[in-house]
Amino acid sequence: MKLTTVRTGNGATSAAVQRGDVWELVAADDVGALLNSPERDEILARPTGSLPLGAADFAPVVIAPRKILCCGHNYRAHIAEMGRDAPEFPTLFAKFADTLVGAADDIALAPSVSALDWEAELAVVVGSTVRHADRDEAAAAIAGYTVANDISARDWQNRTPQWLQGKAFDGTTPLGPVMVTPDEFDPAEGARITCSVNGVLRQSGSTDDLVFDAAHLLSYISEFTALRPGDIVLTGTPSGVGAAATPPTFLGAGDVVETAVEGIGMLINIIGKDAS
Amino acid sequence: MKLTTVRTGNGATSAAVQRGDVWELVAADDVGALLNSPERDEILARPTGSLPLGAADFAPVVIAPRKILCCGHNYRAHIAEMGRDAPEFPTLFAKFADTLVGAADDIALAPSVSALDWEAELAVVVGSTVRHADRDEAAAAIAGYTVANDISARDWQNRTPQWLQGKAFDGTTPLGPVMVTPDEFDPAEGARITCSVNGVLRQSGSTDDLVFDAAHLLSYISEFTALRPGDIVLTGTPSGVGAAATPPTFLGAGDVVETAVEGIGMLINIIGKDAS
Repeated sequence: MKLTTVRTGNGATSAAVQRGDVWELVAADDVGALLNSPERDEILARPTGSLPLGAADFAPVVIAPRKILCCGHNYRAHIAEMGRDAPEFPTLFAKFADTLVGAADDIALAPSVSALDWEAELAVVVGSTVRHADRDEAAAAIAGYTVANDISARDWQNRTPQWLQGKAFDGTTPLGPVMVTPDEFDPAEGARITCSVNGVLRQSGSTDDLVFDAAHLLSYISEFTALRPGDIVLTGTPSGVGAAATPPTFLGAGDVVETAVEGIGMLINIIGKDAS
Repeated sequence: MKLTTVRTGNGATSAAVQRGDVWELVAADDVGALLNSPERDEILARPTGSLPLGAADFAPVVIAPRKILCCGHNYRAHIAEMGRDAPEFPTLFAKFADTLVGAADDIALAPSVSALDWEAELAVVVGSTVRHADRDEAAAAIAGYTVANDISARDWQNRTPQWLQGKAFDGTTPLGPVMVTPDEFDPAEGARITCSVNGVLRQSGSTDDLVFDAAHLLSYISEFTALRPGDIVLTGTPSGVGAAATPPTFLGAGDVVETAVEGIGMLINIIGKDAS
């Protein structure tokens, strides 16, 4: 099953489920609200309208997750390339919901940022509450997978030992276009994850190359904090970021960033001026 | 003016304002809801009940801030003691609302944590929305000040380069007991900030020793993300944490942690078992 969140005009949004060649809208404001509802199945069974697949204006799949956690240093090939050992524990940081934009929205480039970089990521959407969960419980709590780009202001990220300020610019993290449920998508089967900038392939990895997979991350995180329906976990980025290029290469206004995970979909975002 | 949030039974809470020797309850679920209401002044003018000052069961002053940002390395005396230079930029990380507990609540000690440490902090409560704010605009957006203890699991904090996992254990960050408005409390006048453990003074600093003061932090943060009413900024801790003691000293079940800022109030929290 593929779920998404679409804009329906006047600032309103709706969760939607793909059936054949249409998006069927359902009575929930977004996928987050749908996942939080005890009537999830009944809501999905009673569509309130429909849209042709090509007509969707995607909002972030979950509009306002209460928690977004991100894992760094998580692709084996990237870690080996950097000459590092595989980490014993996941490196985790947080993002705010204000960072999120839709699959075709512009990405905000703030005037104070001089080194905006790309990070294609597989993202996990939490479907049920987990706390102190073992691996099996964590796996069972995965509602599905989507695509993110953890666009990073490297200049701000590297100002201090903590990355948050380079990862938390409002309007910089596209999330979508759809969430695919685990019965239809299994990262362990090795889906290709890519990022292209202006048509040039910059990142290409496989989702079976993660040091810490989705179930491991959810279980680990649940040791210190509860995860709830609609929370998002970004699983890290493969090699090929702009900061590691020779010479380092960053994003400028007008650049087109295409971020894809095979079997889920593609984000196509243009770097725009910061309008906030 | 002193505002707080009190528990009123059956899981309910209410914002309250101190008038004479009572807390007058007002029609908002917590200080966060009060600050978010356009009828803030009218709500404060029409109390719905009252409590003797000593009878309050304090919830976190703001129960569910959308954003909690924390600054590390921010007291000059502590930085000098560590032989470091004053930083050019604030080191920032995030916390989740689930970390918060009330001024007299137990602090959760998870079985997996072996190095629980204290960090007395002055906390800022945001009163109006700020984005790309200069120093004066940021100062005008401060609703008030409260006390926090950024209790940290040093073992988890130091597992990886990013501190989040040691700072985000649910139920570990007391926030309160009250918020004092800026007309009655000015950190630049040098309020004493202290942390005692089992009656032994461990930290003692002055709020005029901050490298980055509250207005500076709000202005800086607002460059990358919007701050809104009820958001919280923790301003860092003075010297004297347990990890820096000889030998390093950490918290165990039953320990009593007293965290105070002169002119605001005191948190008294017992280290308890993690009940979540």
